[in-house]
Amino acid sequence: MSGLSSQPYKGTRDLYPADKRVQNYIFSTWHRISKLYGYEEYGASILEPLEVYAAKSGQELANEQTYSFVDRGGRTVAIRPEMTPTISRMVAARRQELAYPARLYSIANFMRYERPQRGREREFWQLNADVFGDDTVAAEAEIITMGDNIMKEFGAKPDDYVIRINNRKLINFMMAQYLGLDATQAQSMVKLLDRKNKISQQDFTDQATEIFGDQPEVGLVNLEKLLSANSMAELPAEIRDSSSVREIQELFTLLERAGVTSLKFDITLMRGLDYYTGMVFEVFDTDPENNRSLFGGGRYDGLVGLFGAEPISAVGMAPGETTMELFLTIHNLLPAVHSTTKVYVAALGDVAREATKLARELRSKNINTELDVSGRKLDKQIKTALKKDIPYILFIGEAEVASGIYTLKNTASSEEYKLNFDEVIDRINEETK
Amino acid sequence: MSGLSSQPYKGTRDLYPADKRVQNYIFSTWHRISKLYGYEEYGASILEPLEVYAAKSGQELANEQTYSFVDRGGRTVAIRPEMTPTISRMVAARRQELAYPARLYSIANFMRYERPQRGREREFWQLNADVFGDDTVAAEAEIITMGDNIMKEFGAKPDDYVIRINNRKLINFMMAQYLGLDATQAQSMVKLLDRKNKISQQDFTDQATEIFGDQPEVGLVNLEKLLSANSMAELPAEIRDSSSVREIQELFTLLERAGVTSLKFDITLMRGLDYYTGMVFEVFDTDPENNRSLFGGGRYDGLVGLFGAEPISAVGMAPGETTMELFLTIHNLLPAVHSTTKVYVAALGDVAREATKLARELRSKNINTELDVSGRKLDKQIKTALKKDIPYILFIGEAEVASGIYTLKNTASSEEYKLNFDEVIDRINEETK
Repeated sequence: MSGLSSQPYKGTRDLYPADKRVQNYIFSTWHRISKLYGYEEYGASILEPLEVYAAKSGQELANEQTYSFVDRGGRTVAIRPEMTPTISRMVAARRQELAYPARLYSIANFMRYERPQRGREREFWQLNADVFGDDTVAAEAEIITMGDNIMKEFGAKPDDYVIRINNRKLINFMMAQYLGLDATQAQSMVKLLDRKNKISQQDFTDQATEIFGDQPEVGLVNLEKLLSANSMAELPAEIRDSSSVREIQELFTLLERAGVTSLKFDITLMRGLDYYTGMVFEVFDTDPENNRSLFGGGRYDGLVGLFGAEPISAVGMAPGETTMELFLTIHNLLPAVHSTTKVYVAALGDVAREATKLARELRSKNINTELDVSGRKLDKQIKTALKKDIPYILFIGEAEVASGIYTLKNTASSEEYKLNFDEVIDRINEETK
Repeated sequence: MSGLSSQPYKGTRDLYPADKRVQNYIFSTWHRISKLYGYEEYGASILEPLEVYAAKSGQELANEQTYSFVDRGGRTVAIRPEMTPTISRMVAARRQELAYPARLYSIANFMRYERPQRGREREFWQLNADVFGDDTVAAEAEIITMGDNIMKEFGAKPDDYVIRINNRKLINFMMAQYLGLDATQAQSMVKLLDRKNKISQQDFTDQATEIFGDQPEVGLVNLEKLLSANSMAELPAEIRDSSSVREIQELFTLLERAGVTSLKFDITLMRGLDYYTGMVFEVFDTDPENNRSLFGGGRYDGLVGLFGAEPISAVGMAPGETTMELFLTIHNLLPAVHSTTKVYVAALGDVAREATKLARELRSKNINTELDVSGRKLDKQIKTALKKDIPYILFIGEAEVASGIYTLKNTASSEEYKLNFDEVIDRINEETK
């Protein structure tokens, strides 16, 4: 006996049919909403040169979290930890040929070397939806409306989540003009604000003091003013009147018109990735037990230009499957998803040939049919169909072959029906459509 | 300007929407037929411990073709080059809980470090369909029938392809009993037969002579007798009467009953992978310009047992996307696949607000709608919709807002219709369903 382990690679999941059905439910919702807004699906390899991430994704992601290695040809590659650099590269490669605004989406897997925990796995799946070539705030409005539509399509109520919105240009303005920080200090402050909810108030103040340097008093007072603003109206006047705040107000107007109500301006929202250049947003669960980030996105106008093409504006978002599944579970929104198989044909006695013919006829009517010609005992066959969560069992023995009348059993209700072939088709189609 | 390349990783493809639609057409056919036979979808991580492949897949695959590396935790892992070891591991992990026969399928990506060429890429996608826990030849019959059904579903005629069938037990019997080869010689002969169509007749004879050793004459004559048999009936009597030939005959009977006619017994069919233990099959294109292998499969009863579980029988197949697409292209079977977007709403003038509302209403009727509120010139918007292969453009300007009558343009026929909202919905649904 070999010692090979039957466990999946650490931090990844084996998806057995019942698990895969849940994933497919989430994916099919993502596909439907993406297509509904005119986004078209694309695909790409899981490998990219490592340097693609080093350029703009941030040092932590590129250096510490990638699965990177040297291939047999000497190239340093990474299993993609995110999609944004890949789709930017693809747009750059066909910069001239594509039609703009280009609306593109994918549902794909990614890997990051992180400590596995609830809602975070080393291999994970995301929807990525991006629009290229729209400089106006209508692009952000559309992406966020899609995100909101996805939440509603899953059955979430507006109170179940909140979409927090900020703008990198506002962050830059506030760091330089209002807090008087230089570039290095500003970067430290962005990282600190990004961690704000994960550390204590005292730690936050201590680290902020350190960033302000020799005379932190004025800076700390101004920072406190900013952080206490719960809406754009409460911001200090010199910030409230900035062009980036006006842009956020315009975005709110468009979103409210589109029926998006779960909105909150949040000046502390930073988003970790280095490539954002404008609006950023993040959707949070409002459940106090689970107030985690569900997904986010924003504008990243500089990325396509890194790949040797004329720059083009871009806005995107990336909902993740694991956090979405957790959200749906916690809010009791996951529907029961049954087997894709509609009927289990159980042959009783020496009728394998006729049972095979029957299964073939059912399949010719587009009915997903599993066939059991093992000749096992009746109770064993029933047990198998039940374990597989198949809604119907169709029995065929010598009497059924002779009469053409079959017994169809509904596995959920245990009801049995005596039906001819056409009636079998009708009943299965009726109850499983 | 950075020097980042916009090209995909060597041997992989970027799938732009038009490419992805073709892939989705192939995938959706695979999904449909797999479900039709009661197979349920599963999923797994792209990473496995390298040793999983070293055990049974064959040395070439494990040592020379895997993308393997040491992760940050010191584990030696590989990007999966195939699915069979993974699904065997998954079955082993739930050996007791699963219901048998277990019918499982996946559509997944794989990587192999090979020289990229037409019909072969370093990253590729496969359908894997496997049945676990059926010891009878009915399992092989079902898997091969599904493979045949997939070919027919794609529009292939029975003459377009041939399913070649052999049996590993017959190969073993023939090597030991009929050709008198020991284990080492037999292994060399299997590899030689596997390469038979890729080398010259002279090279084949030379290498066979070498394998037979000191007195090759009898062996060569017997080998020639085997290779000249075009059917089971033409086999030497002592082989024709073996239990494995009877099993192949039984399989042919079941397949013919199921309507599978593109069958050929082929005693030289070996299949490269080490883990096969019984029936093997391979589907070939019969086009003389392209008589390549399309896909194959077989019985591998020993694999689940490698993962510390009680052994269980298994039969599977793995059609690949790249070869399938090539087959469909060569035989002119690829249908035109249009954009998933049904209508492009073009706003003319200062009607962004009303156009957004109109798009929202179209989406509420489940019509996939792209919205352009850029205010660009009419011809530019039309060009965009045409480039994206969207079947309809709906124009909205101030006159349309006032009258509620819109102009709907069919992009293929260039016909234009003046319609109210309900008529727009009806026409789009009618022509794109």
